[in-house]
Amino acid sequence: MNPLVETELRSPTSETARGAAWVDGHAVPIGEARTSILDTGFLRSDATYDVIAVWDGAFFRLDDHLDRFERGCRKLRLELPYERAEIESILMELVRITALRAAYVEVICTRGVPPEGSRDPRAFDNRFLAFVVPYVWLFEGDDPEAGMDAIIARTVRRIPPDSVDPTVKNYHWGDLTKALYEAYDRGARYPILLDHQGNVTEGAGYNVFALADGRLLTPESGALEGITRRTVMEQAQKEGIPVEATQVSEATFRGAAELFATSTAGGVMPIATLDGEPVGDGSPGAVTRRLRDLYWDALRDPRHTTAVEYAGT
Amino acid sequence: MNPLVETELRSPTSETARGAAWVDGHAVPIGEARTSILDTGFLRSDATYDVIAVWDGAFFRLDDHLDRFERGCRKLRLELPYERAEIESILMELVRITALRAAYVEVICTRGVPPEGSRDPRAFDNRFLAFVVPYVWLFEGDDPEAGMDAIIARTVRRIPPDSVDPTVKNYHWGDLTKALYEAYDRGARYPILLDHQGNVTEGAGYNVFALADGRLLTPESGALEGITRRTVMEQAQKEGIPVEATQVSEATFRGAAELFATSTAGGVMPIATLDGEPVGDGSPGAVTRRLRDLYWDALRDPRHTTAVEYAGT
Repeated sequence: MNPLVETELRSPTSETARGAAWVDGHAVPIGEARTSILDTGFLRSDATYDVIAVWDGAFFRLDDHLDRFERGCRKLRLELPYERAEIESILMELVRITALRAAYVEVICTRGVPPEGSRDPRAFDNRFLAFVVPYVWLFEGDDPEAGMDAIIARTVRRIPPDSVDPTVKNYHWGDLTKALYEAYDRGARYPILLDHQGNVTEGAGYNVFALADGRLLTPESGALEGITRRTVMEQAQKEGIPVEATQVSEATFRGAAELFATSTAGGVMPIATLDGEPVGDGSPGAVTRRLRDLYWDALRDPRHTTAVEYAGT
Repeated sequence: MNPLVETELRSPTSETARGAAWVDGHAVPIGEARTSILDTGFLRSDATYDVIAVWDGAFFRLDDHLDRFERGCRKLRLELPYERAEIESILMELVRITALRAAYVEVICTRGVPPEGSRDPRAFDNRFLAFVVPYVWLFEGDDPEAGMDAIIARTVRRIPPDSVDPTVKNYHWGDLTKALYEAYDRGARYPILLDHQGNVTEGAGYNVFALADGRLLTPESGALEGITRRTVMEQAQKEGIPVEATQVSEATFRGAAELFATSTAGGVMPIATLDGEPVGDGSPGAVTRRLRDLYWDALRDPRHTTAVEYAGT
């Protein structure tokens, strides 16, 4: 039992079945999870975050996600108010009180609320928030076999790394949101953004891979270093599929035999069409299918999972 | 009296003297102003905002600020849940219950909270928030006559307009915050950012002007079209000072006879040093001083002001 949890929310309730959150040092049902509108996490997007999947009652690669989260905090000079073990306890407790066996777990560190009249961010008390909601599929109500209808955005370019470091997971989604609207306008749902040099970067919440000339390629810069991306790269290596993080030009991407996206909220997701044209024959390719199967195996691999202790278990 | 204000907060209290906010359709003291942590205004920085000064008991250029705010909403395809007159009533009421005669008034429109499991932003109910706090000076506890100690940031470039449109006032401040830390690290406080072509853009919450060869220059792109900036341009024109929004190279900026910044939170602010070197002789120049005086005149010009009806007046 986590001594930090000074709340009566120790068991699942109808309120917490929809989710729970950690705000201002307390666990609350998700419907009551509110934060100060003066927090610079909101008013300056001065924050970093991470998302961890709970699948089949266990966290997937919890350490890797928290490593990345803590690294992001250090890069932004944010000081987490909790130690690693405390954060793990909080997350365990939150999942436990939701009783969710498939959940989307988000951890957030914000710069915090300025003391009245101050604008020096070094003086703010940094804040930790977290929330747990039912697992969100990137594919809404789709048959994953159908694959994603993707576009390469024409109206917007990904924010460059020398403006905002994409390896620090951040809420600067203006470019991604604009691309998402463009996708809808063009009859698709999944945008992919280019950088200012014309290379492929990532989508609105997912990394991308291209199988070109028998090699699996994923953009090396301008994109989040996704944990699902890393898992897929590891699995490909084990399978003897050549895989590389490198520059991926628009032309290489368009000419690929197979394309897929990766995300904590969906795993390995085949891309069926790009700008309305079928990728390959339009159905998931052999390499994509193989890697998707291996990813679902990895999700249950005890080396990667941390079981949640649910109430009554 | 605004029929929207269904609250007991009709008169100033000790709670509201520190500020007040409009959240979820109600006026509340600033200390209680909290919003859902699931709002994509926070989790995707999917929002626009504006800041209006109340000075000497009157809003300054309220219409111009609300015009810009509504324009930003349209560009982001956000639909405000209130008409202009309702927003004006809400702001009047908020200032009234704080009894502040010098206030910083922020209006915000966010994309809102996704329905459970949804990621299609077209389906969200957009939300309006506002808050009023005591006037925040960009200069903390400084003698304005001393001028700003500015730097040109070396570690970060301004987010380009084809990634995030800077004319839609937004919370994508990662680049500005990084530059602010760089300024502190270099013993200064006021960063100015270059774009990827090496031209000057803006600072962390302020536009900039350079007096070069007798002409007043301000960056035409990569920067917010500030209302204070516009006021200064209008005043300069009236004074017969040639003024132009144009490309301002780093070299032109460094060679300027006078430099100043403009912001709702400070007006016209002389820049005394740039990268540690004095600008001119290090004291505010004649043109800067003249424009500062004219700006304070404009703040009281009835053509630009909208008086607040305070309780008991």
